[in-house]
Amino acid sequence: MSIFADLLSNVFDRRYRFGLAREDDRPLSELTADLVSTAGDVTGQAVARQILDRYAGWNDDEKRAFFHHLASEMDLDPEAVRSALDAYEVAPGKASYRSFMAAVEPPRQELIRRLNQVPGATRLLVMMRSDLLRLGRDDDALMALDIDFRHLFASWFNRGFLVLRPISWESPAHILEKIIAYEAVHAIDSWDDLRRRLQPADRRCFAFFHPAVSDEPLIFVEVALTQGVPGSIQALLAEGRDPLPPEQANTAVFYSISNCQSGLAGISFGNSLIKQVASDLSTELPGLKTFVTLSPIPGFARWLADQHLPQETEDGTALRQLAAYYLTRAKRGNGKPLDPVASFHLGNGALVHAVHADADVSPKGRAQSHGVMVNYLYDLSRISQNHEKFASDATIATSNELRSLAQVGETILKEAAQ
Amino acid sequence: MSIFADLLSNVFDRRYRFGLAREDDRPLSELTADLVSTAGDVTGQAVARQILDRYAGWNDDEKRAFFHHLASEMDLDPEAVRSALDAYEVAPGKASYRSFMAAVEPPRQELIRRLNQVPGATRLLVMMRSDLLRLGRDDDALMALDIDFRHLFASWFNRGFLVLRPISWESPAHILEKIIAYEAVHAIDSWDDLRRRLQPADRRCFAFFHPAVSDEPLIFVEVALTQGVPGSIQALLAEGRDPLPPEQANTAVFYSISNCQSGLAGISFGNSLIKQVASDLSTELPGLKTFVTLSPIPGFARWLADQHLPQETEDGTALRQLAAYYLTRAKRGNGKPLDPVASFHLGNGALVHAVHADADVSPKGRAQSHGVMVNYLYDLSRISQNHEKFASDATIATSNELRSLAQVGETILKEAAQ
Amino acid sequence: MSIFADLLSNVFDRRYRFGLAREDDRPLSELTADLVSTAGDVTGQAVARQILDRYAGWNDDEKRAFFHHLASEMDLDPEAVRSALDAYEVAPGKASYRSFMAAVEPPRQELIRRLNQVPGATRLLVMMRSDLLRLGRDDDALMALDIDFRHLFASWFNRGFLVLRPISWESPAHILEKIIAYEAVHAIDSWDDLRRRLQPADRRCFAFFHPAVSDEPLIFVEVALTQGVPGSIQALLAEGRDPLPPEQANTAVFYSISNCQSGLAGISFGNSLIKQVASDLSTELPGLKTFVTLSPIPGFARWLADQHLPQETEDGTALRQLAAYYLTRAKRGNGKPLDPVASFHLGNGALVHAVHADADVSPKGRAQSHGVMVNYLYDLSRISQNHEKFASDATIATSNELRSLAQVGETILKEAAQ
Amino acid sequence: MSIFADLLSNVFDRRYRFGLAREDDRPLSELTADLVSTAGDVTGQAVARQILDRYAGWNDDEKRAFFHHLASEMDLDPEAVRSALDAYEVAPGKASYRSFMAAVEPPRQELIRRLNQVPGATRLLVMMRSDLLRLGRDDDALMALDIDFRHLFASWFNRGFLVLRPISWESPAHILEKIIAYEAVHAIDSWDDLRRRLQPADRRCFAFFHPAVSDEPLIFVEVALTQGVPGSIQALLAEGRDPLPPEQANTAVFYSISNCQSGLAGISFGNSLIKQVASDLSTELPGLKTFVTLSPIPGFARWLADQHLPQETEDGTALRQLAAYYLTRAKRGNGKPLDPVASFHLGNGALVHAVHADADVSPKGRAQSHGVMVNYLYDLSRISQNHEKFASDATIATSNELRSLAQVGETILKEAAQ
Repeated sequence: MSIFADLLSNVFDRRYRFGLAREDDRPLSELTADLVSTAGDVTGQAVARQILDRYAGWNDDEKRAFFHHLASEMDLDPEAVRSALDAYEVAPGKASYRSFMAAVEPPRQELIRRLNQVPGATRLLVMMRSDLLRLGRDDDALMALDIDFRHLFASWFNRGFLVLRPISWESPAHILEKIIAYEAVHAIDSWDDLRRRLQPADRRCFAFFHPAVSDEPLIFVEVALTQGVPGSIQALLAEGRDPLPPEQANTAVFYSISNCQSGLAGISFGNSLIKQVASDLSTELPGLKTFVTLSPIPGFARWLADQHLPQETEDGTALRQLAAYYLTRAKRGNGKPLDPVASFHLGNGALVHAVHADADVSPKGRAQSHGVMVNYLYDLSRISQNHEKFASDATIATSNELRSLAQVGETILKEAAQ
Repeated sequence: MSIFADLLSNVFDRRYRFGLAREDDRPLSELTADLVSTAGDVTGQAVARQILDRYAGWNDDEKRAFFHHLASEMDLDPEAVRSALDAYEVAPGKASYRSFMAAVEPPRQELIRRLNQVPGATRLLVMMRSDLLRLGRDDDALMALDIDFRHLFASWFNRGFLVLRPISWESPAHILEKIIAYEAVHAIDSWDDLRRRLQPADRRCFAFFHPAVSDEPLIFVEVALTQGVPGSIQALLAEGRDPLPPEQANTAVFYSISNCQSGLAGISFGNSLIKQVASDLSTELPGLKTFVTLSPIPGFARWLADQHLPQETEDGTALRQLAAYYLTRAKRGNGKPLDPVASFHLGNGALVHAVHADADVSPKGRAQSHGVMVNYLYDLSRISQNHEKFASDATIATSNELRSLAQVGETILKEAAQ
Repeated sequence: MSIFADLLSNVFDRRYRFGLAREDDRPLSELTADLVSTAGDVTGQAVARQILDRYAGWNDDEKRAFFHHLASEMDLDPEAVRSALDAYEVAPGKASYRSFMAAVEPPRQELIRRLNQVPGATRLLVMMRSDLLRLGRDDDALMALDIDFRHLFASWFNRGFLVLRPISWESPAHILEKIIAYEAVHAIDSWDDLRRRLQPADRRCFAFFHPAVSDEPLIFVEVALTQGVPGSIQALLAEGRDPLPPEQANTAVFYSISNCQSGLAGISFGNSLIKQVASDLSTELPGLKTFVTLSPIPGFARWLADQHLPQETEDGTALRQLAAYYLTRAKRGNGKPLDPVASFHLGNGALVHAVHADADVSPKGRAQSHGVMVNYLYDLSRISQNHEKFASDATIATSNELRSLAQVGETILKEAAQ
Repeated sequence: MSIFADLLSNVFDRRYRFGLAREDDRPLSELTADLVSTAGDVTGQAVARQILDRYAGWNDDEKRAFFHHLASEMDLDPEAVRSALDAYEVAPGKASYRSFMAAVEPPRQELIRRLNQVPGATRLLVMMRSDLLRLGRDDDALMALDIDFRHLFASWFNRGFLVLRPISWESPAHILEKIIAYEAVHAIDSWDDLRRRLQPADRRCFAFFHPAVSDEPLIFVEVALTQGVPGSIQALLAEGRDPLPPEQANTAVFYSISNCQSGLAGISFGNSLIKQVASDLSTELPGLKTFVTLSPIPGFARWLADQHLPQETEDGTALRQLAAYYLTRAKRGNGKPLDPVASFHLGNGALVHAVHADADVSPKGRAQSHGVMVNYLYDLSRISQNHEKFASDATIATSNELRSLAQVGETILKEAAQ
């Protein structure tokens, strides 16, 4: 812990040594203690700013030392919890409950809340958690600390505080460059490529934003308005296509959903986003009847390699059958689908609608799923029921066609296994 | 508990009986259980909206029954806390900490968070807490429930999420009518009166807003730009005065601070507001050197009546001396000042600067403090130190003049007591 | 002309005498000459600002002198026009046409355009024309000057540059106070009265604005959404009515149209406003089928008094018959209706739909029309045809019922005349 | 004129033949006559839209026919002008002046004004004039028609109606792509290049917009904030430079000014733009003391080639001397500088400050001026005087250094001529 000792006894940068904020060259441990004390109410912003400024200048070792400080020095006190709990059980009521609630919250939670008082701090705290997840991956104490971050972020980034904003070719460039950077499914390789996804009348994009981090999308979805359910991403993104007049579209295709902030891992926005966008689009365009994805199958090729099938099973028809099997019958230990994208959409109440060969012929598409893609269908009248069955006993909703394909896929696998 | 039983077995209004939301005529207890279950992730918005809609139609008895349901049925489970705590002590780490954190949070907190997923819900939840504070005042179980609301609101209404907005004669009328309604110090009796406080170049008003409750000010402060520290609210608010060109002002007077939301009681914004406004104003108008209040002394007349002083002590001079004494030497059991407004400003790090007789000759001013008012001075270079001394041993910072006055006041009181 | 001589030799205020703008204490005639010279391109803003500043400080005599300066010294030169015309006739083409166009425009037009270069000047120029119309009413030379103002304003305030903005209870107070001030038909007597016209869901208000005068409405219309065509302004504006859900309305009633700027007299906005609002409302609320006014009949009582009818013709039925006659058969020398409001709506292509007794029982309503009001109907399919007939031979479109009433009215008048 | 005959007798597209607008398949000449008639007040928008729609579908021959129709059929009537002028001379006054003003304006001006009533029409009319300038270049009748367009546009695009807006990396992409497209001085070759000109703290860009054409910049200027006057565009636009903190800058460099709309040719915005930007920047950054351009010398190389100088005069020193000569002593017949960029800045009141060799080593820079560039200095205290002298007798203001260089340049030229 020598680095942190160093931090504690030393750290003050030039700005503060000669500047107005001279009093702040106190050791970090004093600052953090100060910030969570009653004084934090009054002088909190200055202290919080000081801590955030220091953080911004630290390397990974210094950051790790800071996190360990929070994890160990600002942890909860089990004895205090126990006696508060005893007192509450003896005489439950306002006073004992307040004491109990105070005891069970480690001081670091209040510290994080008070750091957030500084204008612009929310974004820095999201980046701080991103650092924590990266640096603490194999450190159980830091992963426990992450639970506090996540608990607070779940409250701060509550759906009720998020704002859905359309992203268009009229959006500010500094937002658009983030769309380019964060697109995680089908890379956007230039501003012209971006324009093809935003400007045509049959293309839409929507993102959730948080008011305190207004320049950073949290998650976004790209949508194509089509006639019928599409079976190929190449066709959807082709240059030079003729856009469809939106009022002629009957289908909205969610063809790319990207989370933007690694510091918000585990705070789920995707389900809300899809439903909000589906709802808004069906209000604007009453002709839209079908809401469907065109999704990658990221684990298919890897899984298929493990099945040691003969070469001839890699034609289009067999690939679709095997993909149907993989999506609906290949399970984890907990009974959930092997495929993470399938888990996400099925958990949202979607059903597996159709699979397509040669649907993503990019190198990435070939590598991860031999070019096969899948449509998940969001049927508003069945979402609730689908979700419930999936949540209770992992039942996977599918179309009839998909079920037949999966059945053939199962036969192939059995024969190969003999 | 028959009312709640009734609620549970019955409540569903016509909209839902015949509408799209037919499944939602379930008893309330099922809805609340549903909302905090995993299903709440997916179908939460519909259920949350249903609960909020029902709430909106309830009378006080029904609301009280709802609160009791939360307080008793969605409380924490001490046994679960104890065993989670034991497990954490044996093997602290991510898994045991997550279990512990889950155990110590009563399900009603998650319920409130999920109610908040509905667009516009934040405002309704603030009103819900306002109901709770009103209905549960003498009910310890409901006051314990309030601690959960307050805990969540302190996180949601974190300073970092608040937006400071100027209120001017160019602000929307539906905001301005709230300023009229919420003004708690010097009543605004007409739109013309309001205009006199907003439109002249030497008048300002600022409010904190929360992005999710954008039409409701949380707290606002009215400011007069003056030359020198004013000693009378009548002069400050006089009709037909000549406005001072702002760049000639050397003093900013905070002459009225009003909290707007009873449902946010105990979540403190005033300190932040004053400092933010002082900081913004001094940037805009570098000529401003003094930041001061012109404040009422709400408890002075009542306290004075208890001192049984002879009539002749009610002339202006003696009133100022006695008010100086009252503000700085009349204490509660905990050593803090008797006067609540004094407590607020001193707790913020201000000092008691001057007292003025005939400073508020309105009936209210006469009744509460025989017309005496006080200036609290916010001296940026001393705020931190003032606050610290006040917090640690209740030392009250004053000007020299004020101290002399209080000394004479003390003499008067001693003589009267003999 | 001594006042103007004084202006010329003297005028410079303290600001300019000692300030940066020292060179500007030149006589006004030099400034105006300077502004229309080539130098005006480069140093125009400073000179224009100087002239506008001086104007702002002038009394009516000084303003009149200024207008006379423009009228006489910056008039066109007939000789120059004649020779440019001759040259153009001999050799029409770019060069001769440019010379001709330059010759026919008096320098004061260019002066007004260059005054307009100063930010905020457009509003000042509108006020300047308002002064001109007031001061020059009986002065033919100044009325000729007004033609230049009007010519320029017709170009600047072209419909294509106007912006239609809804006025609501969420509009800025400084706009709303202008609505109160400018309402010319049914006076708004308080902010509560205003709120009753803006806030209910079945009330709308729209105004045209010009981007360069963004805080000043040019004209506004108040609209009530109703079921059926209303026959009384009292009922329409009653306190405590239950608002109609807008989607249940089948009729939009334009019950008040007010021009706001006397300086824009003769630049007609009303026709465009009504049609734009009708078009926007029918898009928003497809249930609206009827667009109708509820209008005063300002000249009816005065005209009726001149008919010397017996007292018994002043009951409701007879009043309606006589009003129907007045509106459709009482004509000016040019064949157009006597009533100015009728002329406006009929010129727009509306038809006279119905008349109502006891429809405006306010003192003003009683005084101007014995309480009778009229609906003009805007039937989109017939507007063009109605207008054309009205424009060509003053044919007035009416409903059948109205025609019958007018017929009876004519009989009454004839009988009385015998 | 057979094409126009065809237009007149035929033109109506399918939309109108079967649509709501059936009456509009009238010949164009009827539509234009209708639009300028009194009916245009009422039914103008529909007719105007019809004409603009037809125009949008025309090829160049059809457009040319349309322009000829305006030029010949909607021209002024010299006889009417002459009699109106006579009447005015006999009895000047409101009535005769109004008649005169009506007579001197050709109907096509009113036509253009009424076309502008349609929302969005202003932009189309600017494009229409762009067509006119292109198609009518060698046709004197069409160039005369252009004088009417220009006259109206000068009024509509009056400085007082323009809005200065900063262009930044946070501007909408559909605006930024126009900046890329319209940059006329130093081409922007990618979005990354654009970002380098907008995002660093020491770079600014400003554009004038018209409220009725809000998505189209009219003119924009790119600015670099520097320490000292720069002598090379390469250094200014270098990738990977360290941005200067703006408050350390003492110089604002206007290094690129681009007009965007060929349809606004001859309506000058550049002078206003430079002065407005200089004024705004000096308010924001009081450290800025010098406002200077870094400008190309587009005609230098061509002129130099005509001087038939020996090869050795093309080293850097001699090039600067010859460029100084060229800029300040090479004149047109009218005494103005040969170089068009010099004419523009000198006409604005700037002075020729310095010339630099190897200042633009791009192929374009080499080709047009052997890499030499020039700084024009905008010295606010001398602009007015510089302009006046330049306007009256073409006197060119220069720095002393520049004058010396030009003197040597003259010597070189004389020696070469011997």
